[in-house]
Amino acid sequence: MLSISQIKQIKNLQAKKYRKEHNLFIAEGNRLVQDLLQSSIQVSKIFYVESWTPMIKNENISYQQISKKEMERISGLSTPSEVLAVVKVPVKQIDFKISESELVLVLDDVQDPGNLGTIIRLADWFGIEKIICTSGTADAYSPKVVQSTMGSIARVAIAYYNPSKIVEQLANKMVPVYGTFLKGENIFHKKLSQNGVIILGNEGNGISKAFESIVSHRITIPSFSKTDCGSESLNVAVAAAIVCSEFRRRTAMDLT
Amino acid sequence: MLSISQIKQIKNLQAKKYRKEHNLFIAEGNRLVQDLLQSSIQVSKIFYVESWTPMIKNENISYQQISKKEMERISGLSTPSEVLAVVKVPVKQIDFKISESELVLVLDDVQDPGNLGTIIRLADWFGIEKIICTSGTADAYSPKVVQSTMGSIARVAIAYYNPSKIVEQLANKMVPVYGTFLKGENIFHKKLSQNGVIILGNEGNGISKAFESIVSHRITIPSFSKTDCGSESLNVAVAAAIVCSEFRRRTAMDLT
Repeated sequence: MLSISQIKQIKNLQAKKYRKEHNLFIAEGNRLVQDLLQSSIQVSKIFYVESWTPMIKNENISYQQISKKEMERISGLSTPSEVLAVVKVPVKQIDFKISESELVLVLDDVQDPGNLGTIIRLADWFGIEKIICTSGTADAYSPKVVQSTMGSIARVAIAYYNPSKIVEQLANKMVPVYGTFLKGENIFHKKLSQNGVIILGNEGNGISKAFESIVSHRITIPSFSKTDCGSESLNVAVAAAIVCSEFRRRTAMDLT
Repeated sequence: MLSISQIKQIKNLQAKKYRKEHNLFIAEGNRLVQDLLQSSIQVSKIFYVESWTPMIKNENISYQQISKKEMERISGLSTPSEVLAVVKVPVKQIDFKISESELVLVLDDVQDPGNLGTIIRLADWFGIEKIICTSGTADAYSPKVVQSTMGSIARVAIAYYNPSKIVEQLANKMVPVYGTFLKGENIFHKKLSQNGVIILGNEGNGISKAFESIVSHRITIPSFSKTDCGSESLNVAVAAAIVCSEFRRRTAMDLT
């Protein structure tokens, strides 16, 4: 049986303020919880309904069976699942070292949680293990982002820094820094390196001046619209997908 | 001054039932409204606040200046803009003819409005002029989709049909039909044609059996994840972006 204070504590984690205060976040659904259990991220407590069976019980985790009604009360989903985990926010410090074939994403104030979730998921698909976010980027541990990553939140390291710290760290590195712009070199014709940093900008304003100053390669995804008054830009997650795919295609085909 | 019945009529258009009944939808924001005014889509009425100036007044459109307070009452946005248009849903019948360099998208029950909006926007970017949707696909004229297309809703023809009708029409065509699957030929190694149909499946279930039967080329976007338990799939809008980009890259570089 859930206490009123337990219900309140869990529901509070929908809000960023409480996630920061308690350093915890919520993950719902069997696949997502299993992915977290298999990762280095520390699951603190699992609430589940009768139909859910834990694969292997971990001694460091507290398990509590609850009724479907109780699950409905603590779930943030319109259709609650069988399992809800309370998870420790991993304290991720990224060392800013970029190895030979490593691609790292930098998100410069990406504000839409849906875009952030999609970018984390595609980073996982394209073998990108680190995402560096400015402090103005959406919170990766908000329920909407966590759920939309489809488990990728368990496998991609995400760290938040002040923009000036990121700029300072990257300015000293000997790796190419790519930025996506509306006007730049056509990505399809450009030589791409095997490793590097890819900066993705804010939905409305693009890449900020501070980050623009450290971009060594301005790239653009060409439009194929037949009209002059066509689409003005691509969604940031879509641009991220095309850029990451193009980098990996070149490496795989030895075409860098 | 807006009447109570006007306010009610406009607010009702947030719901699909009323959009179907009146064959109208809502578009908000200067850029979106301008894009619609420049298109063949028929704008029926424009509500605007004092700060907004219509570029050219069109005689067939009724214009009504309202107060900021009134705009707040009829707007579906958290931050209302200067202008809200009531627009006729275009009656789009697609002839299913596919010309020499034409790519057409078929959406097989894509259900998330965000994904649909993103796909319409990227289709516009990649010069794709027709999207054929199954009747189970999200409504392209819902406020969320309309706003997220960033004006592309004015330039891409969208038509809804029963799946059996689409299958029947496409089965007789001599154009290649591509479908995205988790297991298929690596898109980067595959020869791609200049024209064709690209089928994109439902977020959870992928391409349905009925559509699978008409797919002539099963393609897949390879994963570059270093772990076995990595990301299981890509978001449908992300997959659409990478596939459309790859088709256009080949044509542009004469590499089909």
